[in-house]
Amino acid sequence: MKLKMMYGFLNSDIALIEKELEQAIQTDYALISETSLHYLQAGGKRIRPVFVLLSGKFGHYDIEIIKNVAIALELIHMASLVHDDVIDDADTRRGKPTIKAKWDNRIAMYTGDYVFARSLELMANIQDVRAHEILSKTIVEVCLGEIEQIKDKYDLNQNLRTYLRRIKRKTALLIAASCQLGAIAAGAPEAVHKRLFWFGYNVGMAFQITDDILDFTASAEQLGKPAGSDLLQGNITLPVLYAIQDPEMRKKIEQLFESDHPEYHIDEVISHIKSSGSIQQSFKMSQRYLQKALVLLEELPSNKAKSTLHKIAEFIGNRKF
Amino acid sequence: MKLKMMYGFLNSDIALIEKELEQAIQTDYALISETSLHYLQAGGKRIRPVFVLLSGKFGHYDIEIIKNVAIALELIHMASLVHDDVIDDADTRRGKPTIKAKWDNRIAMYTGDYVFARSLELMANIQDVRAHEILSKTIVEVCLGEIEQIKDKYDLNQNLRTYLRRIKRKTALLIAASCQLGAIAAGAPEAVHKRLFWFGYNVGMAFQITDDILDFTASAEQLGKPAGSDLLQGNITLPVLYAIQDPEMRKKIEQLFESDHPEYHIDEVISHIKSSGSIQQSFKMSQRYLQKALVLLEELPSNKAKSTLHKIAEFIGNRKF
Repeated sequence: MKLKMMYGFLNSDIALIEKELEQAIQTDYALISETSLHYLQAGGKRIRPVFVLLSGKFGHYDIEIIKNVAIALELIHMASLVHDDVIDDADTRRGKPTIKAKWDNRIAMYTGDYVFARSLELMANIQDVRAHEILSKTIVEVCLGEIEQIKDKYDLNQNLRTYLRRIKRKTALLIAASCQLGAIAAGAPEAVHKRLFWFGYNVGMAFQITDDILDFTASAEQLGKPAGSDLLQGNITLPVLYAIQDPEMRKKIEQLFESDHPEYHIDEVISHIKSSGSIQQSFKMSQRYLQKALVLLEELPSNKAKSTLHKIAEFIGNRKF
Repeated sequence: MKLKMMYGFLNSDIALIEKELEQAIQTDYALISETSLHYLQAGGKRIRPVFVLLSGKFGHYDIEIIKNVAIALELIHMASLVHDDVIDDADTRRGKPTIKAKWDNRIAMYTGDYVFARSLELMANIQDVRAHEILSKTIVEVCLGEIEQIKDKYDLNQNLRTYLRRIKRKTALLIAASCQLGAIAAGAPEAVHKRLFWFGYNVGMAFQITDDILDFTASAEQLGKPAGSDLLQGNITLPVLYAIQDPEMRKKIEQLFESDHPEYHIDEVISHIKSSGSIQQSFKMSQRYLQKALVLLEELPSNKAKSTLHKIAEFIGNRKF
């Protein structure tokens, strides 16, 4: 079953958000509209807007209000990707050249700033000040996560705790915030929006671990970028952390990092990682987060949104690309 | 009379803000604390916090509330400077190496993002949603201004309108927002905070034109960077726009831009600009904005803050560096 079919009953609202996402970044400046649209049209799962809308169903769902949160969260995600590509010096994303590759770092920096500013403008339509507090704290953490990622690159002495904290900041908190803010914008009770936060947090952790696994197990075509890209960029993910517990694997990865042409050796390293059992270990970890998410979900009032969140969570934890 | 002496009655509040500015950017990450502090401690006039506090005196002034706005506005200004230095490829600011020069573009980008995120966290303490709306719209404009500046670099075919719109976005709107948000955070009536916005806007325009004049008339020591830096970076400011109405001056500046070593020729170009009368024309334009600001101020209720704003506005329009 495809992700999109799981939330078919939201189709018209999702279509509205897709349309307004494009409008939100329109400017009189051809360049900035072009760079932003370039990114937006490269696709993406739009899972943050979906989480916002579904969480809104636990309160008084008004699409005219909640759409602001859904669009804002997707734009914040997009802004962070644009800046991320500058940090990672990445040339492709979703099978298309990145902004920093097609234009330059400076243009990418300001495209990110602009898209982020637009998201704040949309969020300003939300009257509940708790929403602004939660969002701003989330963004501080996301930024710290990005800085951490620069610092931790190529560092094989980091541990599981470092990794988990990094993906929490990089991914899980923004998905958690999507769920919580959707519920808050719909005026859901505190017990509900706090539970949705933790549901989103655990789904987000499972999501990022799965992403980190797929970087080794999926094909370049499925990924829209070469397999092993994370490792080539020096990002130490969970499968690598497990793999380097074996001193021989650790040595292989050290050699990869020291090589003048790591891209020549990456396929060999990928196949070693695949046969080391660390993919299975990583999958187990992702399943633990997924199970926690599903347990948290159980306690929420039963409705269509709840069963949909359940299906999406399972899909995310088991997706093949 | 020095700027600081004009608002002596705010001294203890300004000292509090200076202390909390440092606290606001503290993290557990040595690198990011170091880069942010590097900037903060390089000084600056802190005029945005001063405008926030003085405008707050037109309502119910509570330093515990209004300090959030004052710190946030200074941090937003700082974040924009950090990103600005990446765009301008600038090596020094306020006599110290820029973050992008001392570290690199990537670190500068995330320092800016982080500092900006902290400012949002502080603003979340303000309950009035209009404040969030005004701030987010201002930031969108500031970003568009930055993008415009990249686009307009080295373009001698731009006109006065282009320049004025650019400095409005680059400088005037953030000063206008400082005044308006200070008043809103203190619960001042709408007629008052809207008037303060326009006062700030006009002061901001005068401030930036003065800055653009000083780039030619002040010494490298006073500026903390070489004279003529704006022009060397391709930024066409008001004195240049007036000067190139003379075809001979236009040719000289075209030659400067085409030169392999523009820094060898900048002193000559500066002295031509100084003797062309365009400095005087620019000064006249700045005075026009200043007079508008003072007229707007007249209609506000009389208090110490009003007379102080008057003095600061005059100082800003007539400062020598």
